[in-house]
Amino acid sequence: MSRFLSYRFADLEPYVPGEQPQDQQYIKLNTNESPYPASPKACERARDAIERLKLYPDPDCKALAESLAEYLAGKYGVQLTKDNVLLTNGSDEVLNFAFMAFCDEKTPAVFPDITYGFYPVFADMNGAPYREIPLTEDFRISPEDYAKAGGTLFIANPNAHTGIALSRDEVEGIIESNRDKVVVVDEAYVDFGCESCVPLVEKYDNLLVTQTFSKSRSMAGARLGFGIAGREIISDLNTIRNSTNPYNINGMTMAAGIGVLEDDEYTMSNCRKIIENRQYTVSELKKLGFELTDSIGNFVFMKHPDYDGGKLYEDLKKAGILVRHFTKERIAQYNRVTIGSREQMEAFINTLKEII
Amino acid sequence: MSRFLSYRFADLEPYVPGEQPQDQQYIKLNTNESPYPASPKACERARDAIERLKLYPDPDCKALAESLAEYLAGKYGVQLTKDNVLLTNGSDEVLNFAFMAFCDEKTPAVFPDITYGFYPVFADMNGAPYREIPLTEDFRISPEDYAKAGGTLFIANPNAHTGIALSRDEVEGIIESNRDKVVVVDEAYVDFGCESCVPLVEKYDNLLVTQTFSKSRSMAGARLGFGIAGREIISDLNTIRNSTNPYNINGMTMAAGIGVLEDDEYTMSNCRKIIENRQYTVSELKKLGFELTDSIGNFVFMKHPDYDGGKLYEDLKKAGILVRHFTKERIAQYNRVTIGSREQMEAFINTLKEII
Repeated sequence: MSRFLSYRFADLEPYVPGEQPQDQQYIKLNTNESPYPASPKACERARDAIERLKLYPDPDCKALAESLAEYLAGKYGVQLTKDNVLLTNGSDEVLNFAFMAFCDEKTPAVFPDITYGFYPVFADMNGAPYREIPLTEDFRISPEDYAKAGGTLFIANPNAHTGIALSRDEVEGIIESNRDKVVVVDEAYVDFGCESCVPLVEKYDNLLVTQTFSKSRSMAGARLGFGIAGREIISDLNTIRNSTNPYNINGMTMAAGIGVLEDDEYTMSNCRKIIENRQYTVSELKKLGFELTDSIGNFVFMKHPDYDGGKLYEDLKKAGILVRHFTKERIAQYNRVTIGSREQMEAFINTLKEII
Repeated sequence: MSRFLSYRFADLEPYVPGEQPQDQQYIKLNTNESPYPASPKACERARDAIERLKLYPDPDCKALAESLAEYLAGKYGVQLTKDNVLLTNGSDEVLNFAFMAFCDEKTPAVFPDITYGFYPVFADMNGAPYREIPLTEDFRISPEDYAKAGGTLFIANPNAHTGIALSRDEVEGIIESNRDKVVVVDEAYVDFGCESCVPLVEKYDNLLVTQTFSKSRSMAGARLGFGIAGREIISDLNTIRNSTNPYNINGMTMAAGIGVLEDDEYTMSNCRKIIENRQYTVSELKKLGFELTDSIGNFVFMKHPDYDGGKLYEDLKKAGILVRHFTKERIAQYNRVTIGSREQMEAFINTLKEII
């Protein structure tokens, strides 16, 4: 820390992302990437955009916003225009904008104790207090705990780490009982079997849904996320964006985004494969005595009654398999394992058989 | 504005970037892009990176940071490592981080009245007061006005809009007299003939220099900027980055950045051409009776004694040439015109001859 850093950030503990080893020596099951390459159409459009690098990208992201609104309207059967979506540099950026716009020292953030680990950092970053609501003993969100929560709600659905999802009706109940506060539903993992809340955007002016191109769309490297909400919330988030970094999406990523939306059958086919691989993995893990949450994300969250979570992480790493281990006490016995290709999951299961 | 937006941003007036028409019908001389395409090596590396889109980029940006530190060390004859540089999503992002880290309600921002129009927005965004120091009547920064300025200084060198530069010695005097505050030297336009302050980074722990790949390196569409400073200031900025968006640079841009640094002769050759085209443009404009600041950026700042600045902007636009006009009173008679290719500047001069 320098002697110049503002007192506001003196105690800030940054978020620590999962390891991203650059030497490719691991079977990488630690950051919920897709095992399948980005859509050929996404790649083709990104290649074309390289020819236009000398020019600034469109700060309004108009072409992609229109494509995305049309795509979401068709997928979820709702009325949406480009004014209902905001494209961001990964969904972390739209989440950060939401903390900035809708949390402050008077309006706390509220989220589960076990969820995406960036939420408390975003709150601290923006000088907003936050309240963590404990998950139930079996790691579920109990919707009644979120009635009149008294702050801006952040609910990952399915939830981060556990992969357990609320139904749309359950989330709607939470939105209904918090009409005076924004409810952010973080749907990073929605495409692997979860009901989306996008259809509720027309009905509730206090709902912001966030999604990403990083997981189901195999574009983690491109950094593209988005928010979907009523026009007023999107307008607020655009005010923040235009006051920090109006050119937040580079031209290649913008083009790749348009490409992958044109190729949705490819995305959906990959999601079906991930779901099959998840079913295979869950079944094999249970045979090995692992206990698992009911994950409908592209990952499983597992612990073994006879094997320490931290030690298992280390043993897997030594064997060339990288998974994610969190040291937070309540989940220290667990590991989160991304669902990769069938071959990767077979290698993972075989390695576990050797370790345990 | 929604009913949920934090009071902190209720009065925020976002920055308005220059027009970015998507229909390509203009000779575009309004946002200081390069007329020359991105380096073939940059494009080649970006194309290779498209094959890896499914994986997150390296959040530490290590390979590019090392390349950049080595490049800058060679170019400016200083000792630098990757811990002296921070890569950002355009230089707007590093500037925003600097306002966040080093300005607050106790530490105002200080900058000239005529400069990059984003500075007051960044200050407002971060709840920091700011003080604008008027340029001299002939639009110069008078270094003595910045002695013991009592806040975090932001000095664009060469200055935005005017293109007028301070010498390195003049900036060093300002840094010397503000040792208890950070001095940010924004060198977006440094490569077109200005002395850089990068050599001073070793000597002053209160100096942050920012540069960009958008102008001289023809990569505005890729969004890549950087800060250069002592390790402690870089560490502060990394704390901010890791608490907002650790994956701020996408993989394609990271790769393109490495490529263009390998191809510096291409960049420098383009800069020489821009300088020649600037000399041609200045000479022709003077023949037409225009008054100009001594710009050493990739733009000129011009007014005509007999022709209204706003009207000239409109007339040029009607004739298919887009330049930048600012409505701020002190410069409302001026237009800022990016230096493009020789052909573009000849077309610009010929159009002016018809208009005036």
